[in-house]
Amino acid sequence: LPKPVTIPAAWELVRTMDFASGWIAIDWGTTNRRAFAVDAGGQVIARHADHRGITSIPAGEFPAEVASLRDMLGDRPLLMAGMVGSNRGWVEAPYVPCPARLDSLVRGAMRLPDHGAAIVPGVSYAAEDRFDVMRGEEVQLLGAAAEGLIPADCLACHPGTHAKWARLSNGGIETFLTIMTGELFALLKGHSILAPQLGARVSADAAFFSGVDRGSRGNALAAELFGVRARMLLDDFGPEQASPFVSGLLIGQDVRSGLVFARSDEPIAVIGDPQLTALYAAAIGRTGRSCVEVDGEAAFLGGIKAIAEKLQ
Amino acid sequence: LPKPVTIPAAWELVRTMDFASGWIAIDWGTTNRRAFAVDAGGQVIARHADHRGITSIPAGEFPAEVASLRDMLGDRPLLMAGMVGSNRGWVEAPYVPCPARLDSLVRGAMRLPDHGAAIVPGVSYAAEDRFDVMRGEEVQLLGAAAEGLIPADCLACHPGTHAKWARLSNGGIETFLTIMTGELFALLKGHSILAPQLGARVSADAAFFSGVDRGSRGNALAAELFGVRARMLLDDFGPEQASPFVSGLLIGQDVRSGLVFARSDEPIAVIGDPQLTALYAAAIGRTGRSCVEVDGEAAFLGGIKAIAEKLQ
Repeated sequence: LPKPVTIPAAWELVRTMDFASGWIAIDWGTTNRRAFAVDAGGQVIARHADHRGITSIPAGEFPAEVASLRDMLGDRPLLMAGMVGSNRGWVEAPYVPCPARLDSLVRGAMRLPDHGAAIVPGVSYAAEDRFDVMRGEEVQLLGAAAEGLIPADCLACHPGTHAKWARLSNGGIETFLTIMTGELFALLKGHSILAPQLGARVSADAAFFSGVDRGSRGNALAAELFGVRARMLLDDFGPEQASPFVSGLLIGQDVRSGLVFARSDEPIAVIGDPQLTALYAAAIGRTGRSCVEVDGEAAFLGGIKAIAEKLQ
Repeated sequence: LPKPVTIPAAWELVRTMDFASGWIAIDWGTTNRRAFAVDAGGQVIARHADHRGITSIPAGEFPAEVASLRDMLGDRPLLMAGMVGSNRGWVEAPYVPCPARLDSLVRGAMRLPDHGAAIVPGVSYAAEDRFDVMRGEEVQLLGAAAEGLIPADCLACHPGTHAKWARLSNGGIETFLTIMTGELFALLKGHSILAPQLGARVSADAAFFSGVDRGSRGNALAAELFGVRARMLLDDFGPEQASPFVSGLLIGQDVRSGLVFARSDEPIAVIGDPQLTALYAAAIGRTGRSCVEVDGEAAFLGGIKAIAEKLQ
């Protein structure tokens, strides 16, 4: 008979990771990170946010980074999510395929026992003609459902650089679609021929809704974008209108693509940064649907709490 | 009785601009320019091309620039088209509204008598819900029709940074639509999360046609673009496929938007840079339509020749 496999010491360490007296939750993205010290009862007792996203941290310096976070937030076990688990992050965590539940995230967590840390995996979707990935939003989506902030069965939208629309079923992610809305807006604002005109702050005004209407009708983005330049040359269209119009155009297209997954009459859950969720809620409202807005931070903390409880 | 208005000396100079012994035609764009010395018979006898587009020329230095072109190409009158006539160029030439014919371009030409030069106006389109402008392509479109390179009644496509689709009627531009296809590709290639994967040369291969098919179905661009990243992470999609796929996606969307103006069964005229017209012809062919490809340089020279003859 083969001998029983010896469990390496590292795994033993993981098995004894103890979240009972609290943890540090880190939402560690490409360009930003937010870290929260959480006590035994699940309450946030300290927080820290900065722009040290993964691309600003050289390979090999993650241990020093987390040591400095512990200096600020206490010597607690770490639970991290987001791009920190990507192939450009600290350690690559796998993607858990859809349908993905909190249990799947717990099973797929990448443990770093020497650092008293674990990285939550991303979620993937693969079908014959469509592939997708997320990292970080899964904690918010499943956390919001676990906390009862959104229904266990619903369509949830997470706006951002790479906006996500996820169909939740029994509290798990059944399928999702990523739309490069925020990144396209940043590209246009930073580098396009329209850049000098896109500096104005975006709010849900008439120009925004005009963009939403054109985008949600399925008008071709590349044609509508040049129309902005032409209107500024020929029409009475000013820079204060161009920025909300283009934002509305992109969000309108985004909403059109996402609502494909909606069932009749159900309210849409919009989770994330409150300024962005307000714009999306306005655009979704324009289609006649109602929304529930959820603060992404509360959803993230709820998700990490549920994972910490299961990882113990 | 009022005295007859005295024609200013400058206009007298213009009226006597003499193209009978040849001219220098300049297609002067944002980032590039091409200049051609043309003899009395309309034949090109010398040419020059460089990257001294209007954005690289400080205000006030256009006279020195054209003097240096004359040193290379001979002391002939100048006929210029393109962004040189924009509000960022040498002197702003007006837009001629649609329907625009060669005669309209001649009437709207901005004369610079002190410099023995004239700038061809751009063309504008304005309707209640759609505004558009072009500068430079109008010479190629109307020139191709004047030279008999394309039918006087047809749908013509001019691919590029800001691709144009123009409905020609009796040799004039009836309406047109600009699509920011080339600029979006450059933005994605230069600055997006996909940038490292978009270096491969684009040809009309299987990945290109796969992109064309998805783009011409009207799939949302921002969603398809993130799918490229997901396929590279999950699928067997390599960098050599990403670049033609994204190009195909953008061109497919472009063709879908442009063919709205097509009549049943007519062949589409594609005018411009031969490498680009070949890609567009392949994408248009994919929809079951036939194409006529016309070299943009021949079209430009034909248009300038027709304008020079009428300006005399």
